[in-house]
Amino acid sequence: MSETIGFVGVGRMGANMARRLAECGYKIGAVLDAHPPTAAALARELRCRHAKTLAAVTAASDIVFTVVTDDAAQLSVFAESGDSLLVGSRGKVFVNCATLTPSVHVEVARRAAARGASAVEGCMASSIPQARQGTLYLMCAGPRKAFTRVKPVLEKLSTSLRFLGKAGRAAQVKALVNMVMNANTAALAEGLGLGDALGLDLDVLREVFGQTGAASQVLKTDGEDMQNRSHDCYFSAAHASKDSTIAWRLGCQAGLHMPVAAATKQQFDTMVARGLGSLDKSGVAELTFKGRQA
Amino acid sequence: MSETIGFVGVGRMGANMARRLAECGYKIGAVLDAHPPTAAALARELRCRHAKTLAAVTAASDIVFTVVTDDAAQLSVFAESGDSLLVGSRGKVFVNCATLTPSVHVEVARRAAARGASAVEGCMASSIPQARQGTLYLMCAGPRKAFTRVKPVLEKLSTSLRFLGKAGRAAQVKALVNMVMNANTAALAEGLGLGDALGLDLDVLREVFGQTGAASQVLKTDGEDMQNRSHDCYFSAAHASKDSTIAWRLGCQAGLHMPVAAATKQQFDTMVARGLGSLDKSGVAELTFKGRQA
Repeated sequence: MSETIGFVGVGRMGANMARRLAECGYKIGAVLDAHPPTAAALARELRCRHAKTLAAVTAASDIVFTVVTDDAAQLSVFAESGDSLLVGSRGKVFVNCATLTPSVHVEVARRAAARGASAVEGCMASSIPQARQGTLYLMCAGPRKAFTRVKPVLEKLSTSLRFLGKAGRAAQVKALVNMVMNANTAALAEGLGLGDALGLDLDVLREVFGQTGAASQVLKTDGEDMQNRSHDCYFSAAHASKDSTIAWRLGCQAGLHMPVAAATKQQFDTMVARGLGSLDKSGVAELTFKGRQA
Repeated sequence: MSETIGFVGVGRMGANMARRLAECGYKIGAVLDAHPPTAAALARELRCRHAKTLAAVTAASDIVFTVVTDDAAQLSVFAESGDSLLVGSRGKVFVNCATLTPSVHVEVARRAAARGASAVEGCMASSIPQARQGTLYLMCAGPRKAFTRVKPVLEKLSTSLRFLGKAGRAAQVKALVNMVMNANTAALAEGLGLGDALGLDLDVLREVFGQTGAASQVLKTDGEDMQNRSHDCYFSAAHASKDSTIAWRLGCQAGLHMPVAAATKQQFDTMVARGLGSLDKSGVAELTFKGRQA
């Protein structure tokens, strides 16, 4: 527990990861968030420093976790000039947990290496309760040596830790996981929406889906919520839109035709455009059930 | 075992259902197939009659199973004039197992009732080995009284027997099951295809999919086959195209927007158009992996 840990981005995921590590005996050096009151509240709770600059997080920590929203935010906290996590980062390790375009992870790894620091991807395929309980599914990539150094910390957060190779590899796998998950989610919403329009008993329909070739993890996590319009957010439609877009762009760059992924991306993009981006991804059912959306 | 059973349509599914019932002690009255040598071979094997007309199957049986290819075939074996299973059908029960447009089951039920016979849907969400072993997942609908009469026979074929309501209900649920299954299959093929294009280890990728929100029944049944191009047919792409079309039309009639189902239908339609309809549904990966199809 000799490593001191910093956090940039302490929304529900980041905050729960910090709570978990504090509980495991790690010293939390400093926290920072784009929304300062969020970081201030967590700093009070964990009795750690609320850093005012990115450089101060790095200065106060041996390992810095970043849990930011998107590509732009990640590149901004690792800016090559001005306030940046890179300032004074020699010998430090960054663990970057957001689902981003893989090439952004590669670029951040390059910038870190140029300063004598290391960047490791820690892509999470789990949600808020798992962060709190230390049972995340974590997909990692980057320099093996840096991964080995942070592994004891990651093992406090994760019961399923995978090392997938060089920088960008974990982000690629994560993008594919979410692309397929989102497509299964959108397909399920269409199936339940049509069942509803036909007047079928959706409890029975979900049960039959679960016993046949239609079964899926999202049926378990989202099926009942789609039926009951319970869209409290675990994984937002806005994130689904972002992640499906990342994967869809990778497909375009590779020259692949991915019509189901494209249709899925369009559905989550539509949710964002209609102001439904803060709903859980199960909210895609709001687009497919008759009479729910004009 | 006092009921004598007839079969119309003894391809791999129908033939295995007949074998199973014969093994359970049922007398097979007569069999018939659109491809006469297929029926002749089964008749020799089961030492039963190879009927030359539909009316002869009805005459030789108390309960007639039909396992035909599509809507047109089903309506044709229940023609209202000429040779037909309806001839001399008073008091008999038909069990119709094909995945059809629900309204076709309703129409066949109407025609049967007009002759004093009954029609029950026995929609199967399983494949050839399950037919042989008597472990089909069977979704039934139609008149409750007729279902009760055939239930002991169906229980020899099925370990999961569900009664879903009036005529058409089982076909609706079946169409939805296959619509969602096909979409999950097409989405998985895109995910693995993109993983392959990115140079990822597909064994690892499938394992990660199976441990995350991307998990699905089709990942278990079709994932490895997509990777290895093993498309021996359990459930053909042509059937997937037909079933996705049935569900998509139901959605159109209900005024629903189902973009993922539409994109999926298009993929399986494309397989048929390219002469790949006889591959297993896993063959949709032939469209999504780089370099497999021009």
